[in-house]
Amino acid sequence: MNAEFEKLLKLNSDGLIPAIAQQHDSGEILMMAWMNKESIDETLKTGRVCYWSRSRQSLWRKGETSGNSQKLKNLRLDCDGDTILLLVDQEGAACHTGRRNCFFYEATDKGVDVISEPIMSKEEMYGKK
Amino acid sequence: MNAEFEKLLKLNSDGLIPAIAQQHDSGEILMMAWMNKESIDETLKTGRVCYWSRSRQSLWRKGETSGNSQKLKNLRLDCDGDTILLLVDQEGAACHTGRRNCFFYEATDKGVDVISEPIMSKEEMYGKK
Repeated sequence: MNAEFEKLLKLNSDGLIPAIAQQHDSGEILMMAWMNKESIDETLKTGRVCYWSRSRQSLWRKGETSGNSQKLKNLRLDCDGDTILLLVDQEGAACHTGRRNCFFYEATDKGVDVISEPIMSKEEMYGKK
Repeated sequence: MNAEFEKLLKLNSDGLIPAIAQQHDSGEILMMAWMNKESIDETLKTGRVCYWSRSRQSLWRKGETSGNSQKLKNLRLDCDGDTILLLVDQEGAACHTGRRNCFFYEATDKGVDVISEPIMSKEEMYGKK
C-alpha cells in the first residue's frame, strides 16, 4: 500500500474497515463486507476483490468456493477514511442465498417484505454436497 | 419497530448497525454512517433519515445543521441482518466537505486521486461563523 493511501486509511480497533461493493455499470449495491490491510493490498495487486472474513478470521477471496468472483474496477475511500467503496464487476450472484445482491429485505414500520428471489441454486454455487 | 424486523436485525456489541445511503434514482452512493434502534424507528416513522453519531453519542438528524436532509424512499436489510441500505432523496451535498458524496478518494497501488469537488461552500452549508 502506498504511503498516501495508508495515511488516509482509518481502520477500526480490530484493524478492519467496512467495504461496500457496487456493480460498476448498473449502480446496484451488491453487499457489504470487511477488509483489512492485507486484503486491500491483495485486491489492488490482483484486481480480484479479497475481503477479511470475521467469522473464519482469514482472507476471503470472493468467489473462491462459489465461482462468483468480483473483478475490481475502482477502489474509493470516503472523506473520513473509514469506509471503502468497491466498484466491481460481479460474476453471478453476490449473496450466499443465490440472490444477485444481499439487500432483499424491505422494511417499513408495518412489516418486512422479501423483494428478490435467487438467480442461482445452492448446488450451482457450491456444488452438490 | 415491528417484531418481524426486530427479529432479523443484528446490531453490533455497541447496539449499532452500518447504514449505506444511496440516491434512489441515480444509484450514487452518498455516504455510510451508523444507526441504532432508536434512529431506525425515527427514520421509519418520520421518513427523514436519522443516524446515530458515534462521536457525539447522540441522534443525528441528517441535515439538521446543514439543511442537507435525506428523505427516505426505502429501507432495506441484508441477508445477515447486519447492514442497512437506505434509498434516499438527498438535498444538496451529503458530505461535510460540501461534496455530493463522501467517496472522493480514488486509490490504486500507485497513489490516491481526489475525483470530485465541492458543490457547496462551508458557508452555504453551516452559515458564516
